[in-house]
Amino acid sequence: MSTVDQRRVGRPSRPVLDRRRIGAAALKLVDDTGGFTLPELARRLGVQTPSLYHHVDGRAGVVELLREHMGRDIDISHLERRPWDVALRGFFRSYRAVFAAHPQAVPLLATSAVRSPEVLAAYEKMLVLLGEVGVPRGEAMAILTACENFVIGSALDFAAPDVMWELPDDVDAPHLASALADQTSPEHRADNAFEFGLSTLLASIADRSS
Amino acid sequence: MSTVDQRRVGRPSRPVLDRRRIGAAALKLVDDTGGFTLPELARRLGVQTPSLYHHVDGRAGVVELLREHMGRDIDISHLERRPWDVALRGFFRSYRAVFAAHPQAVPLLATSAVRSPEVLAAYEKMLVLLGEVGVPRGEAMAILTACENFVIGSALDFAAPDVMWELPDDVDAPHLASALADQTSPEHRADNAFEFGLSTLLASIADRSS
Repeated sequence: MSTVDQRRVGRPSRPVLDRRRIGAAALKLVDDTGGFTLPELARRLGVQTPSLYHHVDGRAGVVELLREHMGRDIDISHLERRPWDVALRGFFRSYRAVFAAHPQAVPLLATSAVRSPEVLAAYEKMLVLLGEVGVPRGEAMAILTACENFVIGSALDFAAPDVMWELPDDVDAPHLASALADQTSPEHRADNAFEFGLSTLLASIADRSS
Repeated sequence: MSTVDQRRVGRPSRPVLDRRRIGAAALKLVDDTGGFTLPELARRLGVQTPSLYHHVDGRAGVVELLREHMGRDIDISHLERRPWDVALRGFFRSYRAVFAAHPQAVPLLATSAVRSPEVLAAYEKMLVLLGEVGVPRGEAMAILTACENFVIGSALDFAAPDVMWELPDDVDAPHLASALADQTSPEHRADNAFEFGLSTLLASIADRSS
């Protein structure tokens, strides 16, 4: 057996570095620590930092892998459904659920430009829907962004505790106390807020359509 | 001069550890790295980790200091204004601006319970307003939460690039391309989306009032 073969036998097999594996490791790192650096990510993958650059375009490239990775869990088949409001409601519910599972990744995705072809394809489908409804083309991005902002904030809220407001004895807040006490189904407080806001925004889309 | 005095003279003066100083250091740490650990925070403050526990109730206590620290920058005087929609609009605009300056802190605040008396006081004022409008008490928290989810998502979007969708040449997305090209004042895309969604949600509050 040659020296090369011996080394190969002795070394634990390591999966080939590819974009999917980098994305999974980056998401785990962000879930664990709230952020990432390329050297930290390389260390977790057991490679040198420069190796990462063969697969991703620096820091922004890793954020885009996070987006693709999470995007694969969102059920975009909803966007093929009709009528349009059923399509958007189903899609945004799935979007919220996936983002809620990775709250620390949310600010990274929300504050960097979308470049992934798969994710851009989902935006294209949403804009087809808004076009079918008759939303004025100049307003479409603002309307879509407003919906998305709401979904993203709602995802974070879904990841929050059921009891989100804790009133110490020495705080005098009678209106807050009674609003909390009188909540309809407090065990679904995040769902209730999400469904209320989503219905409101979808109704406004219908209002703006021609 | 005694040995003690000499040591005091030679040692650089260090500000006393207090909640405000801990909050400022924690926010800086989160802004820089996306998250925090108590040992890291102690190191930045030049103290041992157990010293932090004299001032804060562990990790959740530090998140609450972040909330107080950012809360001091939000102009809650808007909530004293009337009519109610002017009050809420001004408050939510200020809220968005402050949160947009610290996007990495957003998931930490949004996913942990509110306990700070100053912040609870702002919720109390919002609920007074909703009560004045006649929003049914059982729906008030859901409505307020929906507005807040939207504001939080909009804060992240405000911290995002002006060009948020980049279409590579090989991506075929004609509806997205024309919606982007036809945006009204694209240089204010985040503001446009925020104002659209905020107006929509405030109008729905008016609709639900008795």
